[in-house]
Amino acid sequence: MPDETEILIGFVLFSGFTGLDLIGPHEILARLGAKCVLVANNLEPVATPHGVRVLPDLTFSTCPQLHVLVVPGGPGQEQAMYNEELISFVARQSAKSRWTASVCTGALLLARAGLLMQRHATTHWLAMDELHRLGAIPTNKRVVWEDPVVTAAGVSAGIDMALQLASALAGQQAAQRIQLAIEYDPEPPFDAGSPDKAPKEVVDHLRSTSRFARQEV
Amino acid sequence: MPDETEILIGFVLFSGFTGLDLIGPHEILARLGAKCVLVANNLEPVATPHGVRVLPDLTFSTCPQLHVLVVPGGPGQEQAMYNEELISFVARQSAKSRWTASVCTGALLLARAGLLMQRHATTHWLAMDELHRLGAIPTNKRVVWEDPVVTAAGVSAGIDMALQLASALAGQQAAQRIQLAIEYDPEPPFDAGSPDKAPKEVVDHLRSTSRFARQEV
Repeated sequence: MPDETEILIGFVLFSGFTGLDLIGPHEILARLGAKCVLVANNLEPVATPHGVRVLPDLTFSTCPQLHVLVVPGGPGQEQAMYNEELISFVARQSAKSRWTASVCTGALLLARAGLLMQRHATTHWLAMDELHRLGAIPTNKRVVWEDPVVTAAGVSAGIDMALQLASALAGQQAAQRIQLAIEYDPEPPFDAGSPDKAPKEVVDHLRSTSRFARQEV
Repeated sequence: MPDETEILIGFVLFSGFTGLDLIGPHEILARLGAKCVLVANNLEPVATPHGVRVLPDLTFSTCPQLHVLVVPGGPGQEQAMYNEELISFVARQSAKSRWTASVCTGALLLARAGLLMQRHATTHWLAMDELHRLGAIPTNKRVVWEDPVVTAAGVSAGIDMALQLASALAGQQAAQRIQLAIEYDPEPPFDAGSPDKAPKEVVDHLRSTSRFARQEV
């Protein structure tokens, strides 16, 4: 692995990606001094489901080989499964990258690209069955390392994953500096961040309204 | 306060804002169903220090009255202190908004706009002295409520603040649904997220290299 300032880290963008899936890891990995680029089908703005429009830096066809690839999830993941340029980019890059990582339902895109067959992985808790259907071994952990693939659970888990990646790339002290710089000493106001902990009615509501539930009816 | 779907929440953008200061709260507050808009001097892309380019939705002069205003921080805060359009926008909006909130060194912009004189507030741990110099009463908490102003500590604290705001806007169960939807059940790989907890050499390194330290020499 080259010096941190020569590491190239790419983040895949697609319409309907979840903003925090991208920016959580980006905030951490960019602070390593690594060069971070956003990669999409073309250079037009790409919007999150909530209307934040982000400009890509490179296209899938012009992006050089990356050292680390990060694939976010989000409602747009469903359409992205049929985005052949995106899927072949992930497959091609991952063949030579040191790590290929996903956040949330980005894991389903890694599975679609053939990276998770009979391999341990995690995703958003509502998408675990779908991950299984795609050939992976769903693993109920916040971050799953199955070198060279690293998968994180839903949305905010990308922050924890990126700190682990930062440590793997540049050492524990570099990762701790970043953690302190972003003052990541979480104090969630409720203990409702996983289906094991949240009130039953909260879990039931999300289960019954999720796009994964809707697919089954 | 109107129904959630009629709530208008604005996020201030300026060159050099920290990406996670924006996207952490945005990810949470947008999931309320509130309309979220990004507001800047003009409609040109605005870049984070790490080169993520985001498109504003509205300008300071065309943005209607907001119910909630969120001001991120970041290295660009220093220049933004002299951005008269931005500062007067914050002052004008906050006079009628239900809440005005900041993340990280966004609190220094609130102070510059006259919102924190002799009021309790927090900011990034490295900026506490600067917050004091600007007339506020620095308060070592992750989120400080001094109605109608809410301030959060460094970067990632915006997530905790936004969940509290979501609860205040739409009730505890709505906030818990969002927490579960973003699977916010943090597992930081190190216990280095505050200067009280991080190894001394990590704290010393950040202290000696921070822009606030550099200002003093």
